[in-house]
Amino acid sequence: MSQLMNKQWIMTSRPADMVARDNFKFQEVPVPELKDGEMLVKNLYMSFDPTLRAWMNERDTYVKAIAIGEVMRCNAVGEVVESKLDGFEKGDRVMGGIGWQEYCVTTGENIMPFQKVPTNVPPTMPLSILGITGLTAYFGMLDVADLKEGQTVVVSGAAGATGSVAAQIAKLKGCTVIGIAGGPVKSKFLTEELGLDHAIDYKNDDVKAKLKEYCPKGIDRYFDNVGGPILDMVLDRIALKGKVVLCGAISDYNSKDVFGPKNYTRLIVMRGSMQGFIILDYAKRFPEAIAGLSKWVMEGKIKFQEDLQEGLENAPEAFQRIFTGKNIGKQLLKVADPAS
Amino acid sequence: MSQLMNKQWIMTSRPADMVARDNFKFQEVPVPELKDGEMLVKNLYMSFDPTLRAWMNERDTYVKAIAIGEVMRCNAVGEVVESKLDGFEKGDRVMGGIGWQEYCVTTGENIMPFQKVPTNVPPTMPLSILGITGLTAYFGMLDVADLKEGQTVVVSGAAGATGSVAAQIAKLKGCTVIGIAGGPVKSKFLTEELGLDHAIDYKNDDVKAKLKEYCPKGIDRYFDNVGGPILDMVLDRIALKGKVVLCGAISDYNSKDVFGPKNYTRLIVMRGSMQGFIILDYAKRFPEAIAGLSKWVMEGKIKFQEDLQEGLENAPEAFQRIFTGKNIGKQLLKVADPAS
Repeated sequence: MSQLMNKQWIMTSRPADMVARDNFKFQEVPVPELKDGEMLVKNLYMSFDPTLRAWMNERDTYVKAIAIGEVMRCNAVGEVVESKLDGFEKGDRVMGGIGWQEYCVTTGENIMPFQKVPTNVPPTMPLSILGITGLTAYFGMLDVADLKEGQTVVVSGAAGATGSVAAQIAKLKGCTVIGIAGGPVKSKFLTEELGLDHAIDYKNDDVKAKLKEYCPKGIDRYFDNVGGPILDMVLDRIALKGKVVLCGAISDYNSKDVFGPKNYTRLIVMRGSMQGFIILDYAKRFPEAIAGLSKWVMEGKIKFQEDLQEGLENAPEAFQRIFTGKNIGKQLLKVADPAS
Repeated sequence: MSQLMNKQWIMTSRPADMVARDNFKFQEVPVPELKDGEMLVKNLYMSFDPTLRAWMNERDTYVKAIAIGEVMRCNAVGEVVESKLDGFEKGDRVMGGIGWQEYCVTTGENIMPFQKVPTNVPPTMPLSILGITGLTAYFGMLDVADLKEGQTVVVSGAAGATGSVAAQIAKLKGCTVIGIAGGPVKSKFLTEELGLDHAIDYKNDDVKAKLKEYCPKGIDRYFDNVGGPILDMVLDRIALKGKVVLCGAISDYNSKDVFGPKNYTRLIVMRGSMQGFIILDYAKRFPEAIAGLSKWVMEGKIKFQEDLQEGLENAPEAFQRIFTGKNIGKQLLKVADPAS
């Protein structure tokens, strides 16, 4: 049997600003022989998450920074091709930190540990609505935001993977929900597909004026995926005891000059708060959240959208899409079809 | 009997940046005749608080903005000269919103309502350690900060009225406390008088390097009175689940170009928070706090410092002192001696 070869993307440099194809090298290397306690996983679908951009910087975050020369990391769904690892066998479908490559040999331990996922749901679902994306929306809205019925909730990046789910959860909890996204297509998606009360198109609307119009009593909760000047506009209209849930700041991830919100002092006047969170802290409650989200999806109460690109060779461009706002919903890339 | 005259400072313009004598007019007007339900109060000691600067801006804050032509507001201790108001009689010592003037005629209702204060303590104490200043430190540290023994606590404006009390409360709760203030005299005051673990002189020290040295495990709680670039340096070193208590942002109150903290995204990585508060929300618990602070003062566990200027005609300059950092401890101004 000829040696199995593995195509992979290596991070060769840290981006100064926008991540680019130049930050990676595409190479082909032999797949190493399996040892006891390892399994060989074939990549099917890759997930692109904004946090990966932060992992590319030199400074460690909540996980160790990616090293120069390391295979670019990502969460992905794959299938087990061969296993010498207890608990996994050939044909199992798994999710974990496969990375930007066709195959990985793993002990199952990883920054994104490997776990089995069901084969009776579409293979992408564990990466989108039932994955980190959906879980982030679930705990961010239900736990960190501490929503109350009737509140005015604003969500930025509302047509994105996490934002679209977060906004729908706020609707389910009886809030008035305003979604912010870029362009008329996404705006229409927010009101017509997701059923939000209002959409603000930050590329064409006067965001400040629209926030005033749609949030006459102020903003009780802001689920922020983007940061930047919009955060400042929201702080300027924050309601008494209002709260900003800091999920991400995608507008700044590729920027050298990060935007600092000048209006943070409104938090004093309005007795408000800003709270950051990381989904890993909720790991023990993932089963509860997956069950809850699954139920809502099956009942048609939460819609989810996936943006599926194809071909491992296109990984850098697929990753860029989430920073340039080209995607609607969860950005995925198909590497191979499942055998089963 | 000749008509009683009242000297007073009127706000004639809103400061664009640093508050100045030019923003006020000094005038002498007759004291109006007392009506039923009113009392005449003679001003003894005036309190200068950073929040007054925000009240001078056009935008309402947690109270209505000061109007052009209005007597400049402040909290003060005075004595009742004549009373047609139930519950108050001649000779009573009172605290309330007398403002920048020798006398006021009042129904007792005010943005800073009038209340009797004891005559057996120094007349300035209800304005400093037992007043808004001490109460802000008390609730900010004991309630909002939610301190735990052994935590690393940083306090900015630590030689100021609120900061100096806040820092001592954190010491009493078993924390390692680092105070930040301007100049070697204040630094010495922090360590030698107040007994803090470390002092950082922001005018002469490398604040970032000192924070690293004194807070090797990160900063668990930051009691912020100043805002500006120091807030950013603290956010850069915020500990896991760290918290910034937003008490004020004095470095920005007189500035057109407010500083926005770029490192707020560290709150995501570290699951941290920023929380604003206003002391008025704790009004029902003031008696508890005053009792607690009094006990600490009597036991010598909390020291307080007052910076006493003299003469109503010097009010604008006394007010400026808190923004230029000339004061150590609570900035007060003596208008007259008590009769009793």
